[in-house]
Amino acid sequence: MRAVWKDVAGRGLLVSRAPEPACGDNEVLIKVRKAGICGTDLHIFKWDAWSQNRIKPPLVMGHEFVGEIVGIGKAVQGLSLGQRVSAEGHITCGHCRFCRTAQGHICQTVKIIGVDCAGCFAEYIAMPAVNVWPVPDNIADKYAATFDPLGNAMHTAMAQPIAMKNVLISGAGSIGLFAVPIAKAAGAARVIVSEPDPFKREMAARVGADLVIDPIAAGTKFKEQICDFVGNYGCDVLLEMSGNSAALCQGLDALALGGVASLLGIYPGEVCTPLSELVVFKCLTLIGINGRRMFETWYQSENFLATSAAMIDPIITHQLPLEEIENGMLMMEQGKAIKVLLDL
Amino acid sequence: MRAVWKDVAGRGLLVSRAPEPACGDNEVLIKVRKAGICGTDLHIFKWDAWSQNRIKPPLVMGHEFVGEIVGIGKAVQGLSLGQRVSAEGHITCGHCRFCRTAQGHICQTVKIIGVDCAGCFAEYIAMPAVNVWPVPDNIADKYAATFDPLGNAMHTAMAQPIAMKNVLISGAGSIGLFAVPIAKAAGAARVIVSEPDPFKREMAARVGADLVIDPIAAGTKFKEQICDFVGNYGCDVLLEMSGNSAALCQGLDALALGGVASLLGIYPGEVCTPLSELVVFKCLTLIGINGRRMFETWYQSENFLATSAAMIDPIITHQLPLEEIENGMLMMEQGKAIKVLLDL
Amino acid sequence: MRAVWKDVAGRGLLVSRAPEPACGDNEVLIKVRKAGICGTDLHIFKWDAWSQNRIKPPLVMGHEFVGEIVGIGKAVQGLSLGQRVSAEGHITCGHCRFCRTAQGHICQTVKIIGVDCAGCFAEYIAMPAVNVWPVPDNIADKYAATFDPLGNAMHTAMAQPIAMKNVLISGAGSIGLFAVPIAKAAGAARVIVSEPDPFKREMAARVGADLVIDPIAAGTKFKEQICDFVGNYGCDVLLEMSGNSAALCQGLDALALGGVASLLGIYPGEVCTPLSELVVFKCLTLIGINGRRMFETWYQSENFLATSAAMIDPIITHQLPLEEIENGMLMMEQGKAIKVLLDL
Amino acid sequence: MRAVWKDVAGRGLLVSRAPEPACGDNEVLIKVRKAGICGTDLHIFKWDAWSQNRIKPPLVMGHEFVGEIVGIGKAVQGLSLGQRVSAEGHITCGHCRFCRTAQGHICQTVKIIGVDCAGCFAEYIAMPAVNVWPVPDNIADKYAATFDPLGNAMHTAMAQPIAMKNVLISGAGSIGLFAVPIAKAAGAARVIVSEPDPFKREMAARVGADLVIDPIAAGTKFKEQICDFVGNYGCDVLLEMSGNSAALCQGLDALALGGVASLLGIYPGEVCTPLSELVVFKCLTLIGINGRRMFETWYQSENFLATSAAMIDPIITHQLPLEEIENGMLMMEQGKAIKVLLDL
Repeated sequence: MRAVWKDVAGRGLLVSRAPEPACGDNEVLIKVRKAGICGTDLHIFKWDAWSQNRIKPPLVMGHEFVGEIVGIGKAVQGLSLGQRVSAEGHITCGHCRFCRTAQGHICQTVKIIGVDCAGCFAEYIAMPAVNVWPVPDNIADKYAATFDPLGNAMHTAMAQPIAMKNVLISGAGSIGLFAVPIAKAAGAARVIVSEPDPFKREMAARVGADLVIDPIAAGTKFKEQICDFVGNYGCDVLLEMSGNSAALCQGLDALALGGVASLLGIYPGEVCTPLSELVVFKCLTLIGINGRRMFETWYQSENFLATSAAMIDPIITHQLPLEEIENGMLMMEQGKAIKVLLDL
Repeated sequence: MRAVWKDVAGRGLLVSRAPEPACGDNEVLIKVRKAGICGTDLHIFKWDAWSQNRIKPPLVMGHEFVGEIVGIGKAVQGLSLGQRVSAEGHITCGHCRFCRTAQGHICQTVKIIGVDCAGCFAEYIAMPAVNVWPVPDNIADKYAATFDPLGNAMHTAMAQPIAMKNVLISGAGSIGLFAVPIAKAAGAARVIVSEPDPFKREMAARVGADLVIDPIAAGTKFKEQICDFVGNYGCDVLLEMSGNSAALCQGLDALALGGVASLLGIYPGEVCTPLSELVVFKCLTLIGINGRRMFETWYQSENFLATSAAMIDPIITHQLPLEEIENGMLMMEQGKAIKVLLDL
Repeated sequence: MRAVWKDVAGRGLLVSRAPEPACGDNEVLIKVRKAGICGTDLHIFKWDAWSQNRIKPPLVMGHEFVGEIVGIGKAVQGLSLGQRVSAEGHITCGHCRFCRTAQGHICQTVKIIGVDCAGCFAEYIAMPAVNVWPVPDNIADKYAATFDPLGNAMHTAMAQPIAMKNVLISGAGSIGLFAVPIAKAAGAARVIVSEPDPFKREMAARVGADLVIDPIAAGTKFKEQICDFVGNYGCDVLLEMSGNSAALCQGLDALALGGVASLLGIYPGEVCTPLSELVVFKCLTLIGINGRRMFETWYQSENFLATSAAMIDPIITHQLPLEEIENGMLMMEQGKAIKVLLDL
Repeated sequence: MRAVWKDVAGRGLLVSRAPEPACGDNEVLIKVRKAGICGTDLHIFKWDAWSQNRIKPPLVMGHEFVGEIVGIGKAVQGLSLGQRVSAEGHITCGHCRFCRTAQGHICQTVKIIGVDCAGCFAEYIAMPAVNVWPVPDNIADKYAATFDPLGNAMHTAMAQPIAMKNVLISGAGSIGLFAVPIAKAAGAARVIVSEPDPFKREMAARVGADLVIDPIAAGTKFKEQICDFVGNYGCDVLLEMSGNSAALCQGLDALALGGVASLLGIYPGEVCTPLSELVVFKCLTLIGINGRRMFETWYQSENFLATSAAMIDPIITHQLPLEEIENGMLMMEQGKAIKVLLDL
């Protein structure tokens, strides 16, 4: 079958062929229709420090996809041939305390497809049946291929109540952008996006941000501009998507007392903050976020896509044949593309 | 000053004059601009059993309003002359356990303006400063006059998370109708309204219901129609606004297992339900609702009105001079009006 | 192997022999050490209306147990031969919305061991690996055999916060009695038990109830006695274990405004309540409870048993050889025994 | 009247006389019976950097007390002469968003008695009626005098559910020590205290800690020792009372994935942490804590003291006449005293 390989320890990838995967007793075999390129895939393409430490080439890449079930293991129940499906890419142990209490997203022995084992940039992928997500007819393939990154944004947004609240999103990469329509659909009174890149700011406005701020230009007026927009007290909720510690501190500062910050961004090295001033005295709550709740987040994402999918149209900037994946990677690297989908 | 009196123990009211109220040390004097007629006012007009038991004529009626501060008691802080304000009509004791833990809506010694003491269908009303709600400039008078009934709907809707969930509202009187745009704005995936009256069903559709059902016509197909619309499992949340026990049972039946029902409706007499089947085995949660959270609900309502007030326009069917109040009452009685505002 | 059969459609049971169960690929085979007799088993023994409707003899009875793994299916991970285990007796589908969101206790296609398929009153039982609960060394067999009924009480008690609150438990059968030390250990300020049977009231006092009330004798003074004991406002939490609708209404009446009632009791037929007075105006929350959260409840129960197991000693009134099960049933029927364990 | 003054800008205090305070219309006058010395009072005594910045001598010190109402302002309701009371020392504005939503502990214009205005180390203190807490007869004076610091510990402990969970408390100063019996009473399965000082460790064991660790001696084995004690995964909840950033990081490391840390400690300057590793990837929740919830915390503390006050006896190491306050300060400074009460 056709597949995209991380073939060697260095920059690049290889579009080539791979053996079709076998399907275990508790697995299904899925024919991939569309797959999405994640920022993580770009890291692997560029072979950054994280990739060098984690990835063992050769490996079939990719973890965001939608496809069709073409094979079913003999112990599998509740799924059928021909069913259109996406899948949770975190393959968890199933028997630790976290897996047994709906917190599989923090299973300590997780394997991620396209990172730790064969991925979905291929004609076929075998997945544990428990990871498979049947897609209802009213969600088109291009939307169903985004369940994974949309789910990161959904998990972050739904980690605290946001209905009737003012929400600040720092960082308008693909996940930050998904968070804008999600926050609007989830009931935010006002959504503000802070992002230094002008293309991403424009995208944030297109997907519905009520106010877009350049944090560099705003400088020391950042909090004041936000307070002017939402009223005296600042924002109620911060969704930190940037992984930038200055953005984190600026965002915490712009929160009203008693506010909540959910942190999906990944901060390299140590983060230094005036913790007492920013968190303790303000009685803030900080919530670390990772992956998607299995499977509460998926039900939320399904409801969102079934009723509001058109809101994310601007985020899917490109759809390319699998063979043009390198072009997609380069456009993402140059900041010209947000979410790139691959057709198989 | 001009005022509307419940003057005698019997059907009717009297538009006449009343002495201007005094303003205590911890009170403000408010010049009323607009007031709303509540279903409760109609009960008092009609002199139903509840009114006969509770109301002691003569009494100035009315509890929904917006106005302007024209007098300030000497111990009052944080308010100023000329400020545009609405007010919470439940005057609570301030020192019981409920008042001291943000649950003033269940204070056992509450007095309600227009019910237990002088109301707002008058040129002036004196209110305790702690009850007053300053109205921001971006909320027009006609919306600010609805804080009270809108707040009932807000309290009910926000009693459980509804973002990304499917919500059934049973009963499309004024509060049920307010609940429709609130539920949409608060993030409901789909809002379904069940209501036997065709005019109210039409109103429900106009304020944004995704599906409107006639529960009488649906009969035994009620749950099936809902499951077809939202997916297999039924609704996640029921907002029971009808006060009809058959509607309650039908609504509980239409909830998915693990769902939540918030009950604002008032059921005369005993309600008989197959409790084990409808609640225990289904692991439902039922939440009794009353009044508005003081003042969390008001902040939520303010954010809603500041960003989404136009959604409630269809609900305000009439605006009349104070002197035409009886006409407003009659239109409400005949089911031709929903929310009637009075201009002073 | 030796086993206890519900052999015919009528009162009684049969201690006899049964074929040893096979162990599927995703199952383990468990040698049973101790099993507990549940009230449900007594219903089956007595062949009441519920049993006649649900049970299809012949069937091996029993669902509460502890044992040892003696066989492991080839697809099972994370379990080992010789491991001491209990197990969740609700065998769920694993792929419905409830199973996928840690709400397996409301899976609509559940099968219960000893009710819908072969049970644990036998030398061996085969269980799906996902149902198995490894028992740590610091929990003795006699306690580990109670994970199931203790878990019902734990689920009910933990359905709302009870730390620093006053808790009323209505009904002191075995689950109501388990709820007493659980509520104390979970932080209740005061635990009150309402129970008409003098033997059960005595048991409630022995397991730590701070106040024990005979609801029949208390009559109209019921609420007053409770308010006197806990302060002015009544109890904060009701754990309704009786399945008696008069006890439910009395318990709701004795709750403070804003209180929470969790209902595990099963009410035959319809329950008639003055719903507005008891629930809506009081802003109570009612929570239907069923089974055990899979597996949050089990982790809570494990922590309880590992640190506080001795608190439940009085509840385990009898330990008998398997062959004397009928004697155990009769003692339970006569109200002379609470929890009876069977040794294999 | 007799009173303790911070009389000059420098180390020390002065026991002298002061004019009896006037009682405003919305205030009560309280005759102080017992008062407690807080760590904050010691800072003021020592005239540390914080004190130099905040305190304006001359000032009557003290904010923890119990007394008796001897005067009542004319607008006050619900209180009576002779009533025994304690009081919340945070005098809040009453009309900001936080005051209006039961979050007075984060009112931005708070004044603290004994810090920003006259305190309770005096024969009389005037307090706003809304700050006063009537003390039930079953709570003795020496316990009632601790409502304030006990409330800090209660607020921290109750900020997340702890029933059936394993709790780590870092820092065994007076508030950390109060947190031990509170955590036990609130349902913690196991309470572990980390504290470098041997006297405080001994105190922690005396008030019920299940395990006491010297974090210096434990070093890199800290987490391992905790995991060995509670099971594989680490603690579920951290109550950070030390204000030491190394203790914070060590505590976060010892939390199980998905755990919660409540931070009452105050960290001087910036705190540097590997935020991604310690919080984001572990999906921890961090909660900043300050003061006491007004007045939910007080109800919780009252229930605790009414049922479990004896648990805190070891913490009250000294009771002295007011005139010996300097001796109490010195013992606290030398680490020989924990909670010192003053008799008036």
